Amino acid sequence: MEFKLAQIAKLIDGQLIGDENIKITNLHGLENALSGSLSFLSNPKYKKHIYTTKASAVIVNEQFNADAKVPCALIKVKDPYLSFTILLDYYVKLKVKQKVGIEQPCHIATSATLGSEIYAGAFSYIGENVSIGNNVKIYPQVYIGDNSQIGDHSILYSGVKVYAETIIGKHCTIQAGAVLGSDGFGFAPQDDGSYKTIPQIGNVILEDHVDVGANTTIDCGTFESTIIRRGVKIDNLIQLAHNTEIGENTVIAAQAGISGSTKVGKNCIIGGQAGLVGHITLADNTKIQAQSGITKNSKEGQALYGSPALTYNNYVRSYTIFKRLPELLKQVELLEEKILNLHQGKHDS
Amino acid sequence: MEFKLAQIAKLIDGQLIGDENIKITNLHGLENALSGSLSFLSNPKYKKHIYTTKASAVIVNEQFNADAKVPCALIKVKDPYLSFTILLDYYVKLKVKQKVGIEQPCHIATSATLGSEIYAGAFSYIGENVSIGNNVKIYPQVYIGDNSQIGDHSILYSGVKVYAETIIGKHCTIQAGAVLGSDGFGFAPQDDGSYKTIPQIGNVILEDHVDVGANTTIDCGTFESTIIRRGVKIDNLIQLAHNTEIGENTVIAAQAGISGSTKVGKNCIIGGQAGLVGHITLADNTKIQAQSGITKNSKEGQALYGSPALTYNNYVRSYTIFKRLPELLKQVELLEEKILNLHQGKHDS
Amino acid sequence: MEFKLAQIAKLIDGQLIGDENIKITNLHGLENALSGSLSFLSNPKYKKHIYTTKASAVIVNEQFNADAKVPCALIKVKDPYLSFTILLDYYVKLKVKQKVGIEQPCHIATSATLGSEIYAGAFSYIGENVSIGNNVKIYPQVYIGDNSQIGDHSILYSGVKVYAETIIGKHCTIQAGAVLGSDGFGFAPQDDGSYKTIPQIGNVILEDHVDVGANTTIDCGTFESTIIRRGVKIDNLIQLAHNTEIGENTVIAAQAGISGSTKVGKNCIIGGQAGLVGHITLADNTKIQAQSGITKNSKEGQALYGSPALTYNNYVRSYTIFKRLPELLKQVELLEEKILNLHQGKHDS
Repeated sequence: MEFKLAQIAKLIDGQLIGDENIKITNLHGLENALSGSLSFLSNPKYKKHIYTTKASAVIVNEQFNADAKVPCALIKVKDPYLSFTILLDYYVKLKVKQKVGIEQPCHIATSATLGSEIYAGAFSYIGENVSIGNNVKIYPQVYIGDNSQIGDHSILYSGVKVYAETIIGKHCTIQAGAVLGSDGFGFAPQDDGSYKTIPQIGNVILEDHVDVGANTTIDCGTFESTIIRRGVKIDNLIQLAHNTEIGENTVIAAQAGISGSTKVGKNCIIGGQAGLVGHITLADNTKIQAQSGITKNSKEGQALYGSPALTYNNYVRSYTIFKRLPELLKQVELLEEKILNLHQGKHDS
Repeated sequence: MEFKLAQIAKLIDGQLIGDENIKITNLHGLENALSGSLSFLSNPKYKKHIYTTKASAVIVNEQFNADAKVPCALIKVKDPYLSFTILLDYYVKLKVKQKVGIEQPCHIATSATLGSEIYAGAFSYIGENVSIGNNVKIYPQVYIGDNSQIGDHSILYSGVKVYAETIIGKHCTIQAGAVLGSDGFGFAPQDDGSYKTIPQIGNVILEDHVDVGANTTIDCGTFESTIIRRGVKIDNLIQLAHNTEIGENTVIAAQAGISGSTKVGKNCIIGGQAGLVGHITLADNTKIQAQSGITKNSKEGQALYGSPALTYNNYVRSYTIFKRLPELLKQVELLEEKILNLHQGKHDS
Repeated sequence: MEFKLAQIAKLIDGQLIGDENIKITNLHGLENALSGSLSFLSNPKYKKHIYTTKASAVIVNEQFNADAKVPCALIKVKDPYLSFTILLDYYVKLKVKQKVGIEQPCHIATSATLGSEIYAGAFSYIGENVSIGNNVKIYPQVYIGDNSQIGDHSILYSGVKVYAETIIGKHCTIQAGAVLGSDGFGFAPQDDGSYKTIPQIGNVILEDHVDVGANTTIDCGTFESTIIRRGVKIDNLIQLAHNTEIGENTVIAAQAGISGSTKVGKNCIIGGQAGLVGHITLADNTKIQAQSGITKNSKEGQALYGSPALTYNNYVRSYTIFKRLPELLKQVELLEEKILNLHQGKHDS
């Protein structure tokens, strides 16, 4: 994409100092900028870089005063970082908007209903009775099983797999390779040591504004629903097992795993590679440190750490001593020696 | 799908109390049931919910006596939960049966052989000399590399990737996005610090009744086979490295990882996010606690826990004291003080 | 594939003892070999197996002297293992070479440029302005987003997803289901507890000779690049977050995760399931033990272990005492008792 500097200054309501016809083709940090880059200066400690940047233009604070010659055009605004993110937003929306229409070949069941301004990439598959909202973007090689619903303005990147009966809300973004609605892991042990698969006929429900990361897997409920509430943000390679429920605005970092039927409250933060056992409940605002193993219900606002997890402070205190266990052992051995001496009446001092 | 209540009562050999023409369109728990739902009451502690349920019909024990007016039809049977799972099974099999035929476009090599009643979804790919058994269901966007074999009644959900030469037994179910036969991670260090890739020409063998979870990866053997024995159940996002062998009826929970050439015995249970180093052997019936790190061979029936793992009991005992290390440190410091006092002849009591 | 023994002996410059017309159809270890197998004997401790092997031919050391009748043909060479890997290499390259041409249907944008001798499998997708080098192999159902570049001799296995703007070097191998360029996990907290997605417009750059494992995910930079340097080897199910940079010839084992903006030096080894927090720097030659949690910068050549990680030796020393904490507690309790006795003037010996 290509923009003229005048266009950009107008978009962020900034004061342009320089040639309004300069062409901007990319956005970059000050240090890595190239010719054609637009950059920004927000933190004063990076001010020195503005005198050597290769950027064609830089967004600066309206109070900005150059101490030396600046090699680029400037756009002065109130909050350079905010203005920059406004441009990022604008750029991303433009890119997404460009994708529109049905690429062939693509499989759309005749019973499916499609909204306006949708994109369906080549080799995507839309099953029977699927309902697709307005402005939904379905990238190539996406699979949407029968009877599923996708709300307005949602984006499914390449290779997303949506099992039958899944419900996805509005403004959801699902990154490539994510799987929604795979069978839960349920098996009844038999007398001969083998396992009988328990049929999984529930589904997955994503409310509005949910983001799901690449290659993350969310299992369907056994016969009810696995539910991801409004505003939940889920990173890459995460496992959410059958019948889990994740509360509003909870954030889960990469490679965390949540076992079956566990309920997570609102506004929780779950660190990367953390694991939660099944059938427990995290209260609202619980914070789980990365790599922790949660085996019990939590209390509102609790911070947890360790495997199995203690409260954050307890774990840190214990681990501080763990680090110096060899010294503690020596202290004890020294005491043993001293007491032996005392017993023998030989004071060593 | 839609069933009449009379049909359902007949399927589970139950006594119907209510209108046999009621239409059932879904299965749900008592509390979440809707009009059209069939539910069940198994645990007496949920009995109260039957008086307020929105379900159209509920399966109850043959001894069930209502204490008040029940707002739904009833089907009386010996074991309500068992009857419910029979219906689940029936429903799932019906759903799978419905998928039959070859959807176009789909790539089937002329040298491939196909069994009867198979389903091959649009955009699926079946390579040279592939052999597909009877009643196999291949969902859209599945890839099956050259010379692979898929046994009767196996299901490969959307986006499963099967490398060339893979052998999949009968009654296997592979969830979406799973990868079978990717190259093992083998590299020979070179003098200049770089690595040379060691070619991986082995394959993956799944025996009968193996279930593989979504986005799980199973690497091929270097030049022999990675083998998953009969009845093994593998959850989502699991890594099984080259030349691993998993014994009959072993169950592996999500996000566990098993390194190269490690052999796991029969009837083992491996918890979520556990990791096993390479070239070790787990004896039959070994139990690995979630998040544990296994670095050594195990003995039959051993339970292991921790990273690196100890026996389950040892880890729990040590961790119990870990939790109170700050107090232990204080105890030791107090002792030091007391002994100092003793040395100085000043008894503090 | 099928080779005559004479061909094979010639390829590895070996002395053939046996029928030069024997047909070799597979490569196997001595114990698992079948009729048609070629095997090798390198380690003298396996010599006994050569008298009972079912292999049709075995590569042996030129000094090899049979103590009894050998049931197979022999090829004598200087270094049997090296010769065997030369054959593996040859075999793999032959297999890859066979894949050539464009299978239909496949989506290739008219603005894309394609090198010579490429393979593009059915249902693969090559977007606008994509540039594909010579001898690149793109397996079925691969997605390559707009403006991406793939260097000569690279292989993308089935189902790989490459977001727009990604740059892949020469001689890279990407296993099935890997995702390159998914959106980084960045969200700005809002006053109402919800999160606003921070647009991610950067890309992923893979230099030459990079290997990426199955279902691994590499996020794009926020507005710069996530960079994987020359010769890096990345196993399956790994998460590399936005703006990470991995130094030359670093090796990362399965299921490890690296958080945003972290820089890893050259020639590092990162164990399986290890996790690194964001915004830290690992010096060259750092070694991370499996399952460790790295929270701080490392020094060159450091070995780290534990969660949070200590130096390798510190962790091992502390964990050795952790294992015997129950005994340490008893030692302390015994001391308390003894001191109590001393205080009371009752020496217990």
